[in-house]
Amino acid sequence: MNIRFVIKVLGRLLLLEGAFMSLSVILSLIYQDGVALKMLLSSGITMATALLVILINKEKSKNLGKKEGFLVVSLSWIIFSFFGTLPFLLSGSIPSFTDAFFETISGFTTTGASILNDIEALPASVLFWRSMTQWIGGMGIIVLSLAILPLLGIGGLQLFVAEVPGPAPDKLHPKVKETAKRLWAIYVAFTLTEMILLLFGGMSFFDAFNHSLTTMATGGYSTKQASIAAWSSPYIHYVISFFMLVAGTNFTMAYFALKGRTKKIWNNEEFRVYLGFLLGFTVIFTLVLSLSRGGLFEENFRESIFQVVSIMTTTGYVTADYLAWAPLLVTLIFILMFFGGSAGSTGGGIKIIRVWLTMKNSYLESKRILHPNAVIPIRYNHRAVPDSITSNILNFVVLYMLIFIVGVVVMAMLGMDMTSSMGAVAACLGNIGPGIGSVGPLDNFAHLPAFGKWFLGFLMLMGRLELFTVIVLLSPVFWRK
Amino acid sequence: MNIRFVIKVLGRLLLLEGAFMSLSVILSLIYQDGVALKMLLSSGITMATALLVILINKEKSKNLGKKEGFLVVSLSWIIFSFFGTLPFLLSGSIPSFTDAFFETISGFTTTGASILNDIEALPASVLFWRSMTQWIGGMGIIVLSLAILPLLGIGGLQLFVAEVPGPAPDKLHPKVKETAKRLWAIYVAFTLTEMILLLFGGMSFFDAFNHSLTTMATGGYSTKQASIAAWSSPYIHYVISFFMLVAGTNFTMAYFALKGRTKKIWNNEEFRVYLGFLLGFTVIFTLVLSLSRGGLFEENFRESIFQVVSIMTTTGYVTADYLAWAPLLVTLIFILMFFGGSAGSTGGGIKIIRVWLTMKNSYLESKRILHPNAVIPIRYNHRAVPDSITSNILNFVVLYMLIFIVGVVVMAMLGMDMTSSMGAVAACLGNIGPGIGSVGPLDNFAHLPAFGKWFLGFLMLMGRLELFTVIVLLSPVFWRK
Repeated sequence: MNIRFVIKVLGRLLLLEGAFMSLSVILSLIYQDGVALKMLLSSGITMATALLVILINKEKSKNLGKKEGFLVVSLSWIIFSFFGTLPFLLSGSIPSFTDAFFETISGFTTTGASILNDIEALPASVLFWRSMTQWIGGMGIIVLSLAILPLLGIGGLQLFVAEVPGPAPDKLHPKVKETAKRLWAIYVAFTLTEMILLLFGGMSFFDAFNHSLTTMATGGYSTKQASIAAWSSPYIHYVISFFMLVAGTNFTMAYFALKGRTKKIWNNEEFRVYLGFLLGFTVIFTLVLSLSRGGLFEENFRESIFQVVSIMTTTGYVTADYLAWAPLLVTLIFILMFFGGSAGSTGGGIKIIRVWLTMKNSYLESKRILHPNAVIPIRYNHRAVPDSITSNILNFVVLYMLIFIVGVVVMAMLGMDMTSSMGAVAACLGNIGPGIGSVGPLDNFAHLPAFGKWFLGFLMLMGRLELFTVIVLLSPVFWRK
Repeated sequence: MNIRFVIKVLGRLLLLEGAFMSLSVILSLIYQDGVALKMLLSSGITMATALLVILINKEKSKNLGKKEGFLVVSLSWIIFSFFGTLPFLLSGSIPSFTDAFFETISGFTTTGASILNDIEALPASVLFWRSMTQWIGGMGIIVLSLAILPLLGIGGLQLFVAEVPGPAPDKLHPKVKETAKRLWAIYVAFTLTEMILLLFGGMSFFDAFNHSLTTMATGGYSTKQASIAAWSSPYIHYVISFFMLVAGTNFTMAYFALKGRTKKIWNNEEFRVYLGFLLGFTVIFTLVLSLSRGGLFEENFRESIFQVVSIMTTTGYVTADYLAWAPLLVTLIFILMFFGGSAGSTGGGIKIIRVWLTMKNSYLESKRILHPNAVIPIRYNHRAVPDSITSNILNFVVLYMLIFIVGVVVMAMLGMDMTSSMGAVAACLGNIGPGIGSVGPLDNFAHLPAFGKWFLGFLMLMGRLELFTVIVLLSPVFWRK
């Protein structure tokens, strides 16, 4: 283990965080929210620490091994979350360290679960930093899921490495840089496009900017306590629905779209299934809402598509209190929390590709029982999926369920009722935000005991980093020479 | 597909059901409950149908192929449940066919979910038949799970074929007969022993007989609306706890115990894990009950061990309203509903061996990610488990969860709240009986709409027959020549 190299990378990343934080200073000066000095101090502490680490730790090596890779990934999210609390703490917006850490890790993991009871009361620059944590987290996830994790062999993600544009995946370093550049350009372009479209819908510049940052990250932090329900304009609801859908798509598809290679997009099985699920659930929701409560068709359709896209892509914005809907829809919302976005998107959860291949595999298993000597592999994109990857995927899905169950038990130990425990754990592990029960769309996570907040923060981290990235660090084998 | 052979086997089995049914006539005469003629009619119709089928259908072949095996197994449970409704319908105890079928399939699958609101009002012989359906179902399951299903390669059950006493598993026919004889002798012996011990505890002969029939089947039908809570005697609670524990054990272990080969029992990993889970959960329940509500330690311990054993072995008797316990315990009860008994017991659920190997596999997966080229199999009973069996097991667990999820959605469609849907589906798919929510220990399944009852009956059948036995019949591949 080359620990000095790990520190070197972390130092540079921390410097980057400090630089992003300094943007809040500018914002504070523009909006005259009175915390410019506090924001400067936060950014200063972060950058000074980073520079100190970089100067002290001299390391020439450029080779990032597998173990170093796992360590850098997990530690960068944790360290970002620690320093990311500074703006909240120093500005006095969130006095408790536990709460500030929860809010920050919820940001960097693009979860969006909040402990804030009066969002509108916060200074503009603090709200901006809160949105920024999600946008940075989304950036991190794109490069992580498209360039690093597949090479580390996590949970079957090898499957779509071949799809990623960029140089051949033989060497990690140049590939990461090239791929990252292209995909970040797309990420920035989408963010700006959404912002402009929201401005056309009558949103203020500040709100449009913040919401486009948190949409593209499938984060879900809003500048309003009521989330997107604070705006009644259908146009705004549809624009945000569309961009959540885009954010939950494999970013490689966006790359192909810009290159005009639409056939390649339509040939992608995960993308078709993703759209199929969204469409199917939207139809069911619209029908059930129309039958159970009546009202205008357009409104039922709009609330349906917004909530379905928001939960399935793990964004977590709300325009309606879905807990007040028919029991069938509450149940479906809860199940949707496990689907997640496409692999290679900023969405969390189990991911469409895994859900789909798991379903396919279960279907094939009955054929296998009838013909025990025949080899019957799953097919994906018209190719047979190797057994090792199928097994990776099943192991991932099973582990996800096991962690979910353990999580629910831990939350129940803290005295939470079963429904709320399930909601809180599904929402945090899946990086969604609001859950069901006492952490539903009209509530937040403020009322949980401190231990619960730290534990849920840990689940957010595990869920965001495809479980195994964090879990291998907990295994004694990892630390053996 | 040799359909005539299938009919031949089914005819013989139906004759056996009629014979068992005729025992109710004797019981009716002894207890003078006034329905002796109705019971005679039920038994007569069943046996006459069976004889008719046997006489018309001439078939000399003795070879049972794989496809015929699947068909016989599923159809025998369905046909038994259809004819098993006769005593309920003809005696007027359960006038609705839907309700009678639910009660009967719940019996033959050893589930124990009931639609009866006043059990004590039923004639003695009808109650006896109700208990008998479970005992017959238990008998069927023993031979099925120890002699037939492992040979069909269902869900990793091949693993313990080597453990089953009897001739080598090369030919199905002699093995089934020999194994069945030995294990049924044990089953009968245990039933009689429990009955005698319950008589010593002051139970009436009728109650002791019925409860020993339904304990050994891990069925859970009681002669009292209040289930075992109708008796306050700690002795009775402990005796029943012990025999539920025995019924949830692989019956091969009982065979070894009688042969004095105790070392072979202790060397069995599933048995150790089974006891470990029961003990662990009992300790947790006792502690949490003592801390949360105080009271006598013995009472807390007794209620804990009874409910833990009853739910985990999928029996479903109750001595306490566990829904009134602390949220942690309600959550754990719900999770326990998925564990199930040992493979080769009369218990349902996922089964300890699969739960345990799934946990082991998830633990090993992080090692595999660090050493992608190393072969790291699960070890069971000190031997490496072949990849194909590990994959069987994971597929089973995943499919169980998928069916559970689909089941919950279907129940939610009928307007049930999410908690009750989850409780009803877990309790029926796992062959337990009482669930959580509106189908908890103090409630029953009477209030469900007819479609829900038929659907849950189908889930009981799937759960009881290790999912795939039923599912392959639904696959078009099965019916192709």
